[in-house]
Amino acid sequence: MTPALLVGYLAALLGTVCWIPQAWKAWSTRDTSGISLLSNMLFLTTVSLWLLYGLLVADWPIIIANTFAVLAVLTIVAAKLKYK
Amino acid sequence: MTPALLVGYLAALLGTVCWIPQAWKAWSTRDTSGISLLSNMLFLTTVSLWLLYGLLVADWPIIIANTFAVLAVLTIVAAKLKYK
Repeated sequence: MTPALLVGYLAALLGTVCWIPQAWKAWSTRDTSGISLLSNMLFLTTVSLWLLYGLLVADWPIIIANTFAVLAVLTIVAAKLKYK
Repeated sequence: MTPALLVGYLAALLGTVCWIPQAWKAWSTRDTSGISLLSNMLFLTTVSLWLLYGLLVADWPIIIANTFAVLAVLTIVAAKLKYK
C-alpha cells in the first residue's frame, strides 16, 4: 500500500468514528446548547450526499464510511432537537 | 457532467461550508459547553489527514476543500479551548 492510500484509509476510518464522542456527550449530558443545529443539518446533508455518491459510483468504502457517519450525525441532530 | 459527479461536487462544497455556522455560533455566543472537544479534535485530525492525502496525490479539489475545512474546525476547537 502506498503512503497516500494509507493516509486516505486512516482519514476515512477516523471520519467514521470521530462523531461518536459528540453523540455520546449530547445524549448523556442533554447539554446541546452550544451545538449549531444549522451546521449539523448541513453536515447531515453532506454525508447523505457522499452516501448517495458512493451508491451511484458503487464504491463500497465510501458507502460503508458514510452510512456510519449518517447514523452518528442523525443521533447528534436528534439530541439537539430533543434537548434544545 | 454525470449525476454522480454532480452529487460528489455538491457534497464536497457543502462539506467545506457546513461548519461555518458552528464556528460563528461558538465565537459569538461563547457557549461551547455542549461541544465535544474530543470529537472536534478527531475531526480536525480527519480533515488534516484528507488535506495530506490531497497533497500526496496532488488532487486540487481535495486540497482546497480540506484547507477550508481545517480552518473552520480549527476555529471551533480554538473557541472550545478558550470558552470551555
